[in-house]
Formats: sequence, structure tokens, C-alpha cells
Amino acid sequence: MRAARWHARGDVRVEEVPDPELAPGTVAIDVAWCGICGTDLHEYTEGPIFIPAPGHPHPVSGESAPLVIGHEFSGVVSALGEGVDDLRVGESVVVEPYILRPGTPTGDDDSYQLSPDMNFIGLGGRGGGLAERIAVERRWVHPVGDVPLDQAALIEPLAVGHHAYRRSGAGAGDVALVGGAGPIGLLLAALLRAEGLRVLLTEVSEARKAKARDTGVAEEVLDPRDGSVADRVRELTGGRGADVCFECSSVQPVLDTLVDAVKPGGVVVNVSIWGHRASLDIQSLVLKEVDLRGTIGYAGDHPATIRLVQEGKVDLAPFITHRIGLDELVDVGYDTLLHRTETAVKILVSPTL
Amino acid sequence: MRAARWHARGDVRVEEVPDPELAPGTVAIDVAWCGICGTDLHEYTEGPIFIPAPGHPHPVSGESAPLVIGHEFSGVVSALGEGVDDLRVGESVVVEPYILRPGTPTGDDDSYQLSPDMNFIGLGGRGGGLAERIAVERRWVHPVGDVPLDQAALIEPLAVGHHAYRRSGAGAGDVALVGGAGPIGLLLAALLRAEGLRVLLTEVSEARKAKARDTGVAEEVLDPRDGSVADRVRELTGGRGADVCFECSSVQPVLDTLVDAVKPGGVVVNVSIWGHRASLDIQSLVLKEVDLRGTIGYAGDHPATIRLVQEGKVDLAPFITHRIGLDELVDVGYDTLLHRTETAVKILVSPTL
Repeated sequence: MRAARWHARGDVRVEEVPDPELAPGTVAIDVAWCGICGTDLHEYTEGPIFIPAPGHPHPVSGESAPLVIGHEFSGVVSALGEGVDDLRVGESVVVEPYILRPGTPTGDDDSYQLSPDMNFIGLGGRGGGLAERIAVERRWVHPVGDVPLDQAALIEPLAVGHHAYRRSGAGAGDVALVGGAGPIGLLLAALLRAEGLRVLLTEVSEARKAKARDTGVAEEVLDPRDGSVADRVRELTGGRGADVCFECSSVQPVLDTLVDAVKPGGVVVNVSIWGHRASLDIQSLVLKEVDLRGTIGYAGDHPATIRLVQEGKVDLAPFITHRIGLDELVDVGYDTLLHRTETAVKILVSPTL
Repeated sequence: MRAARWHARGDVRVEEVPDPELAPGTVAIDVAWCGICGTDLHEYTEGPIFIPAPGHPHPVSGESAPLVIGHEFSGVVSALGEGVDDLRVGESVVVEPYILRPGTPTGDDDSYQLSPDMNFIGLGGRGGGLAERIAVERRWVHPVGDVPLDQAALIEPLAVGHHAYRRSGAGAGDVALVGGAGPIGLLLAALLRAEGLRVLLTEVSEARKAKARDTGVAEEVLDPRDGSVADRVRELTGGRGADVCFECSSVQPVLDTLVDAVKPGGVVVNVSIWGHRASLDIQSLVLKEVDLRGTIGYAGDHPATIRLVQEGKVDLAPFITHRIGLDELVDVGYDTLLHRTETAVKILVSPTL
């Protein structure tokens, strides 16, 4: 079959690879759509990060580069491995792309995202979504019912937002400030709105501000060039500040703005992946008793996330800005995200286009 | 009466001031002992910080420098203002030294430490413990029964530790790593031990390491010069890491050590006051889903803190290293803490010595 494989930094190739094997307990999936994630870009420009370098196989998957990539994908069940009897061939599914040590508890209440040697399908081995086919352990396959397959490819990043929301401890009626209107910021904002929060968003890029306004995810889109974002947030909250803030930009001034804008006793969740250390106004953290919380991936978030989409509470269609074929992955997909990133939210790749 | 007043940075004077007035609802206290706090030192060397500068009266107290200082004190009730009928003259008490806006909810479950314009008695006005006498609103006076008055002066910093402990969400059986064996680190360690936690401590100063060992507050005192503290903590916790860490040093490498040593899903509480921004390994915060939490003061912590001392679960006597008179405040007290800080834990000042 055809697949995109990461060979080295700056070297991703679409090439012929062996078909996946349908082992007992696994599910064979014909991939429909796979989104390009910021992590994929980081692997391309600065990697290997999650990807096990050649000669350094991942301790669980046993694999190292070159590896098939892509971890935000949807598809249709094409065959069921021995012992799998609760899915149907032809069913639409998405994958929660975990690679975990055997024996790791993976109940919806287990924090398996934090287990030792955790890695992701499509980064650490076991195939990926930028391929025609994949076989995945039953545990990680989630049926999506009649959610369109293109939208379903966005359930993985939406689950990242759902997990960040759970980490925040916030709830309906709370005021959230989201820092950054990239794909994760926008999807998280949509999720927060669906959960009944008042959502404010801060962003400087004109194109991203327009996307935030077009998708209607935020009550107000605040540009720091128009005046202090933190002051405006306090103005909108009776002087109190935001109940919860979500850092989705890995940009220092955004983190500072959120620490300033959050209310005393409030929570700032850092959702983004930073390539460098952050500077922190720790005195504000102390005097306001702020919680700064990290969040990574998801654990037990997929069912609730899928339900939000099935019930129409989150419409993922507006976040799909590009659809390309596998051969266009680097020249169109990566190129757009690297050089015209503000024109895109989510670029979907089809292995059959 | 005689009192120590802050006039300006580097200018603290022991001088004659008017006696406090016994207004309705207040309690007159003859001060027995008052501890010197790190905050007092900061005001002396770098202030005004909490102290309202001359000409800039605090919005609640209406006072500005020169002001009586001292907020860690014990004493004996000498008179009761009109309407106060649940205390006795002659009773030993300590003061929870808050200045709050009128009408602020001050129940034990209210977060009044975070209320707007919050300041402290002995910093923001309303007298202080470095004086012969003070009159304090009944709400902030806590009887201590037969706790010796010298030890009682340490209940205020112990309450800081109690509040930090509550902020951490930790409990009996958890493993705590305390960063820094200054007064707050040592008192917090003693409190954690009393609450049933396993306590590890990291410190570089030989004198402070000795204090930590002498007072028996920690199971193990770790010196980073003897090898990675985080590795040793993992070794002592079956590879997992500390459940909770407490930053009590405002030293960058200590914060880094705690973020490294805390387990995935763990909590780092920052207890210390930093005079500058911190640098943060935010990638570890994210990948381990760590909570970094600020804590300030106390709110509803005094009753439980006093109980721990009354029941003998925390012995405060070993932390008192010096007793001096009011006239020695600057020349002996501040001088010791500024130039031979490692020889002291808590210096107590008596207005009558």
C-alpha cells in the first residue's frame, strides 16, 4: 500500500510499504482522512521528537524511523481480527492513537496518557493515518456513527481540547480566555462553547482572528494591539478576571496575558507544546493563588468528544480548510502550514485522492 | 508605648508611639513575642512592597508609612472592646493578621486571602507585633490555650505551611519533597510530617541541612551536590517521583529540581515569594500533566494549625534560635538574618526584654 513515512528531518516520503497484518484483537481500517498536526510539522522541521530515531527503537513498539506517520484519522472498518466481535465491517471509526506498555490500565478513568514509554500511533510506530490502511488494537478504535468521515478526522484534536477542558475543572457558565486561534485553540474554543462556557479569545493574526469570528466560537476576539487584553477581560467579568485560561500558542506574551487575565484562585491550562522554556510571572501565580496546569493528549475523552459531535453541539466542518491527496502532503500540506499557516486551520489528507 | 516603625527602605526605628485605641469589637493584646519574617527583611532591604509608601495610604486601613511592623506574634488579652464576650482577659492568643475591605466574607471556607486590597496587620497598618500593645478585630484573634507564648509566635508561619498543604491536595501516606530548609521550609516539613506524609527535603547550606536533621522533620535531607535529587527521589518512590513538592526557596535550580522530581500527575506548590520572574520547564509540566500552584497566606487555617501544636503533633520549640529585645531588632535581628542567615531559623523579639 501507499504511505507517507518519516525518514529524517526534512525527509518525508510517500512510498510503497507492506500492508498491515490483521493480528488477533485488532481492527483493520481503510483510512478515509488524516489531518496534519502541528506535531507532524515539528517532526518534519526539528524532529525526531516523538519519532524513535533510526537505531533507537521505541521500547514498546520496537520500531524506529523510517515510520509511517499521521495520528489524526478516520476510516471504515474493513476486517475484524480474531476475538473482535463488537464492531461491524463498514462501520465509520476514529482511532485514539496510543502506544502503551502491555498491562497499562486503560480504563476511561485511568491516566494512561501519563504512563511510562507512552507514544502515539503515527509517531512511535504501529502504522499511521497517512497510509491507505492500518490495523489497530480494538481498545483504541471508537465508532463514530454517522459523523461524516472528513469531520471525524478532527475528533482527535477535539479530544485534546476535551481533555484540557477536563483538566481545567471549569464548567458551564464559567468565563474562559483562549490564547491563540490556531487549530487547537479554535477547536478547544468550540468545545468550551458547546460545554456552556462563555469564551473569549486572544489572537494577533488577522487571518486567524477572521477564522475565529467566522466560526463563531468566541463571544469576543481580543487583539492585544487594541489595548490590554487582561483589562478587557476584567471589564467583561465585573472586574474579576477569567475563571480559566487556555494557552494554545506557545508564545511567551500570550502566557503572560493569561496569567494576568485569570481571576484570583483561577486556573491556566497550558495546552500547547513549547520548544523552549517559558518565563513565568511567579509572583502573580503566588499572590493570586493561580494553578498552572499541563495537559497532554487524552484519556477516556473520546466517547464524550464523539457524542458532542454526534449531537451537533460542535460542528467540525468549518475548521476543514484544505483537502489534499497523499502525494501533496509535503509540497502542498507542509508548505502551506510552514509558509502560509494563517490561511489554514485543518488540512485533511486522503490516501485515495 | 514603644514600637518598631518602618520609615523608609533601610530605616526602621524603635520609638515612642501612641497606645492603640480599644474600639468596639476589638481585643487589646499585650504582645509577648513577635517573629521576624522574611517579608519584614524584604521591606527593610527592598521595600516598600506591602507597606503603603508615605503619601499613598492603604485603601482599607487609610494608613501609610511610617507604620508599626511585625505580623508573627503572640500575646495576652488585656482588655475586651465593647461587644466582645467570648474571650477572657489573661488568655493567650495569636493574631491572623489580615486587613480586608469591610464586608469581605471571612468564613473559614472563604478565600478571603485573595480578596481585593488585602494587606496584613504589621505591614499595611493597624499596628503590629513589634510593639508593646495592639488592638485587633475579634475575628482575627485566635486563643491558643496553654501553648507557650514563644512557640505561639510561630503559629503564623506554620499556618502558611498549613495553607500550602491544603492547596496541594496531598494527604497522609503521600511523599513530599520540600525545596529549601529556611524557616518556612522547615515549619512546612514539620507540618507535613504531622499530617502523616513522608517528607524529603533538599537543601545545599550545611547549617540548614544540620537544622533539618536536628529537628527530624525529614526522612532524608538531599544535597544536589551529592547527585541528582530528582533521581534520588525516584529511587525512594519506586521510580515514580514525589506526589507533591513545595518550593520554599525562590531559587531557580530548586524549582527545576521539583518539576523534575514530581511524579506524572503530581503537584508543585510554590510557597516562596520571588523577587523576579521564574524560568519554567513548561514541556515537563505538559508531558507529565503537572500542576504548579501558587499559595499565599492562610484562610481558615489557624484553628487546625493551633490544634496540631496543642496536640503536640508539631513541636515548635526547636525552630526558635534567637530571642532578642525590641532595641536589638535591627542591629542583631536583621543583621543576623541578612549576614548570618543560616545560623538562624526563627528570631523572636520581645517588646519587654
